[in-house]
Amino acid sequence: MTDPTASAEPPSGPPARRRGRPSRAASAGTRDRILTAAREEFSAHGYDKTSVRQIAKAAGVDSALVHHYFGTKEQVFAAAVEVAFAPALAAPDTLAEGPADGVGERLARFVLGVWENPTTRAPLLAILRSAVTNETAAAVFRRLVAAQLVRRVAARLDLPDAELRAELAAAQLVGTALMRYVLKLEPLASADVEEIIARVSPVVQKHLTQP
Amino acid sequence: MTDPTASAEPPSGPPARRRGRPSRAASAGTRDRILTAAREEFSAHGYDKTSVRQIAKAAGVDSALVHHYFGTKEQVFAAAVEVAFAPALAAPDTLAEGPADGVGERLARFVLGVWENPTTRAPLLAILRSAVTNETAAAVFRRLVAAQLVRRVAARLDLPDAELRAELAAAQLVGTALMRYVLKLEPLASADVEEIIARVSPVVQKHLTQP
Repeated sequence: MTDPTASAEPPSGPPARRRGRPSRAASAGTRDRILTAAREEFSAHGYDKTSVRQIAKAAGVDSALVHHYFGTKEQVFAAAVEVAFAPALAAPDTLAEGPADGVGERLARFVLGVWENPTTRAPLLAILRSAVTNETAAAVFRRLVAAQLVRRVAARLDLPDAELRAELAAAQLVGTALMRYVLKLEPLASADVEEIIARVSPVVQKHLTQP
Repeated sequence: MTDPTASAEPPSGPPARRRGRPSRAASAGTRDRILTAAREEFSAHGYDKTSVRQIAKAAGVDSALVHHYFGTKEQVFAAAVEVAFAPALAAPDTLAEGPADGVGERLARFVLGVWENPTTRAPLLAILRSAVTNETAAAVFRRLVAAQLVRRVAARLDLPDAELRAELAAAQLVGTALMRYVLKLEPLASADVEEIIARVSPVVQKHLTQP
């Protein structure tokens, strides 16, 4: 397996770049292009049916460069998931941004806002699809969600069972998103988002703070 | 397209049966064998990657017989979903089996009980996987859940917004099942099921009955 940290330079550049080492800016551009291609390929075909070769082709680079920057397919997936998750990672911060009796509403509004926006919804949906259908993808998802969301939300709660509370609150929000945006069950799918927020906020609040 | 209701007899029997028309019992046996094969094939490969031909092969029958009994691939899937859903279909009945202030706990206990048992969990998981990754499978799932669960739970509630209430209660339970049994997030995945029931029951109760 290629060690992505072994060298600061790619082992072989893309065909268009022939004049020696790529600049730092060019490297960052290539890395981003690979990540975007990875997200699109995983999104369109799922984890199982996506190969590093396909991702490289979609990004217009050699497979070796994908391995250089990210390592294995699992590691490319983890990096793509992290990017796709970026908009959701501010969720724990919303808990600190106001009175304690409003954490339920702030978290519900934030999470449903991310799902309501097609631009931030698409990558989340792609990850959820891969995680639900493939065990390796589920493990990547699990590690990221545990480290970046559950632990950080729990850290704000200061209760002994904070992680379980955070997960049950997340279960209400993820279940609502699944039924509204993926399975599209009516009347939930067409209900006004403010109506949904009003109904789930007390539940999220209850999970997070009720003794 | 073959009309599955056009004749009471299959157009061609399985190879083992050569002595004229199959009996009613033999037909029922073949139908069940096809359904079991369909559930296993959809479960293992997902909706997209499963063909009627594969299902027929797994059941040891001709593809024409699958079309005769069920119609299109979508219709085979719908029939398999209905069978997989059978254990969940008693959920609405639990609402009537005791005092009104216990509906939350009864529904939570019932739904988590179905997910906790590997025999009833496997087919539900297979459907959820197909529904999350394929739009046709999602539509089949949606119609069944709407008709068999949401409407029936709502009918017991006698409130104007009963369907939305039923769906938000289901969102808590489906989200919990997804995170516990599919994504396996800790500490939720290893928590005692009675602890989970104790925590989600008041939420389900709130969604279903609180004014």
